[in-house]
Amino acid sequence: MKELKNQYRDELLNNVMPFWLEHSIDKEYGGFLNSLDRDGTVFDTDKWIWMQGRAVWMFATLYNQVEKRQEWLDASCQGAEFLSRYGCNKEGYYFCVTRKGEPLVQPYQIFSNAFAAMGYGVLAKALPDSGYPALAKETFDLYLSRRENPKGRYNKIVPGTRPMKSFAVEMILCNLALEMESTLGKEYVDRLVRDLAEVIRRTYYRPEFGVILEQVGADGSFVDSYDGRYFSPGHACEAMWFLMDIGVRLKDEELIRWAADVTLKSLDRGWDKQYGGIFYYMDVKDKYPLWLDCDQKMWWVHLESLIATLQGYQLTGDKRLLSWFNTLHEYTWAHFKDPEYPEWFGYLNRRGEVLFPLKGGKFKTCFHLPRALLRIWRMLENHEI
Amino acid sequence: MKELKNQYRDELLNNVMPFWLEHSIDKEYGGFLNSLDRDGTVFDTDKWIWMQGRAVWMFATLYNQVEKRQEWLDASCQGAEFLSRYGCNKEGYYFCVTRKGEPLVQPYQIFSNAFAAMGYGVLAKALPDSGYPALAKETFDLYLSRRENPKGRYNKIVPGTRPMKSFAVEMILCNLALEMESTLGKEYVDRLVRDLAEVIRRTYYRPEFGVILEQVGADGSFVDSYDGRYFSPGHACEAMWFLMDIGVRLKDEELIRWAADVTLKSLDRGWDKQYGGIFYYMDVKDKYPLWLDCDQKMWWVHLESLIATLQGYQLTGDKRLLSWFNTLHEYTWAHFKDPEYPEWFGYLNRRGEVLFPLKGGKFKTCFHLPRALLRIWRMLENHEI
Repeated sequence: MKELKNQYRDELLNNVMPFWLEHSIDKEYGGFLNSLDRDGTVFDTDKWIWMQGRAVWMFATLYNQVEKRQEWLDASCQGAEFLSRYGCNKEGYYFCVTRKGEPLVQPYQIFSNAFAAMGYGVLAKALPDSGYPALAKETFDLYLSRRENPKGRYNKIVPGTRPMKSFAVEMILCNLALEMESTLGKEYVDRLVRDLAEVIRRTYYRPEFGVILEQVGADGSFVDSYDGRYFSPGHACEAMWFLMDIGVRLKDEELIRWAADVTLKSLDRGWDKQYGGIFYYMDVKDKYPLWLDCDQKMWWVHLESLIATLQGYQLTGDKRLLSWFNTLHEYTWAHFKDPEYPEWFGYLNRRGEVLFPLKGGKFKTCFHLPRALLRIWRMLENHEI
Repeated sequence: MKELKNQYRDELLNNVMPFWLEHSIDKEYGGFLNSLDRDGTVFDTDKWIWMQGRAVWMFATLYNQVEKRQEWLDASCQGAEFLSRYGCNKEGYYFCVTRKGEPLVQPYQIFSNAFAAMGYGVLAKALPDSGYPALAKETFDLYLSRRENPKGRYNKIVPGTRPMKSFAVEMILCNLALEMESTLGKEYVDRLVRDLAEVIRRTYYRPEFGVILEQVGADGSFVDSYDGRYFSPGHACEAMWFLMDIGVRLKDEELIRWAADVTLKSLDRGWDKQYGGIFYYMDVKDKYPLWLDCDQKMWWVHLESLIATLQGYQLTGDKRLLSWFNTLHEYTWAHFKDPEYPEWFGYLNRRGEVLFPLKGGKFKTCFHLPRALLRIWRMLENHEI
């Protein structure tokens, strides 16, 4: 037990965070360099805004939760400065900018706003007398303002024919609200997360399939189309630990049991019985997903599921969740940890062989891995397993 | 030789076309059903507009070039009727509509216009006294009108920061212009394709890499970004047989030799030396492509390369192209042909194992396979190899 706890802590503090501190901070232009090869070499300099906000969040979270290390706070602050100076126009946060901060890809979706708000939100907690509390609130409001029509003018879907809504919009908000408590206040957060948990349970969980669907009809119905059949087991598991956090906060035992149960169902459905690992996404009626990378094994899917299973076990005592945690722990450390260089691989093929050995890219940065290592270390510290 | 010719002809006439005639025609609502499982069972009813136009083209082409079979003409006509009635609004052709023809995905890119024009264009040749010649011309003009700004209001790229242009827009136009000669007239087509060949040679072919790039700077420069490094060997080979067609038309021997040479370079670069087959796409500087399906083996990549190598060999006599044709013939028939049901697989993983056994989907219909079988049959009929 103690050894396992140390394994997660040491990996975070001695392997993973030093990699990001050394390689990702752009000392010339500020912000974070995102495209890092296996050994940390920068192979492309474009800056992806999701990744900027997430790294700001991670460094400030370590500063808030682990230790008041100045280098973590400095890393977070310089990222937040870049993000607030170059990251947005009046429509919202861009998707991508150049190394110098010139805009490249428009604010066509709202998640850039979410991760910017999340970064500012934890920095606001570290620096309550700075401009970050106000900036965090403003950016959070920008996210909310587009909640009903997340893609706005960039939406390619014809309105009216088959109106659908997206799980991700609500699911991200669960976590964002909890992270921003110091800005939003306890009462507001309590009310918002209670409503969100209810929406997810009633709307996106489909009892006929026993899973969370990524998109449902605007009226909450199942839509038998490619988009409507889309199921992402790792995304569901990530959401379930957000809901367990909410359950703990609201002392809602039933919500916790429900989230633990959906975690189990997602893994039963999503586990690759032939090669091991969790599929990236699936068609809930066992037809064909739209995209061709569905059978690949993603670092974040496995790390989020590790959190959900351990948290679920600690909260409910259900031994099936402990058994899943052990299975996932074995698979994850054996396949994703790079045995030669610091940090972990992100992209494996179905067989668990490395597809791209990069450590950072358009969707991979200092976020899912260190967040999971931190949470699991802390969970192992606070509870026996 | 005769056996090989018969192999391609018989596969087209006795295996592939009967599959599409039997399973893809929507007798209730018109148009073509696109999502067909391994045995032809319909697994989703949305209609993808690229696929509608391409199937219209294929059936009319067989009618024009092989035999005046009424069932081919009828299939093409009923598709064209659906496409012209439900396929477009004033902005252009949608990307997707429902089975009944209600619009689902906006006309956010111009290729739907191209494949609709291509379908109407060959139907215009079969039915010169119908409304199709005028409709073909109108749809062709719609494509041209968006040539400089293909994504229009749906463009997510911020204007000005890093302006780029796309090979596909010009490359598709090469083939489209040739297919629409009966509508556009010889002189217009001659001038257009001469200009296009020049643009492709000067702008999209990069001598420093020896390959065609999918995107270059608006000024024709190499852009060292994810998009700028994007190389698709199968797309290049497809374009090279378009250019060889243009070379034959314009009696431009030098263009033919150049296109044959680029075919060789694309295959040398794109062939998977470990598992065989041609990669879907690559980063020209051997960094990482943006998308995760890059190492998969696609039916169309191999079929287009089969055409390019045989045509290149027949036109230049270069034995390296014949050798590639033989290699590709072996790989393609061994891996893509379904040994149990009619039609061929489309999607293999890197090792050449079937990823999705479907026969029709969002991007696969009655097009690349029958077009390649027809062309290769005819090439083997007209020239010794």
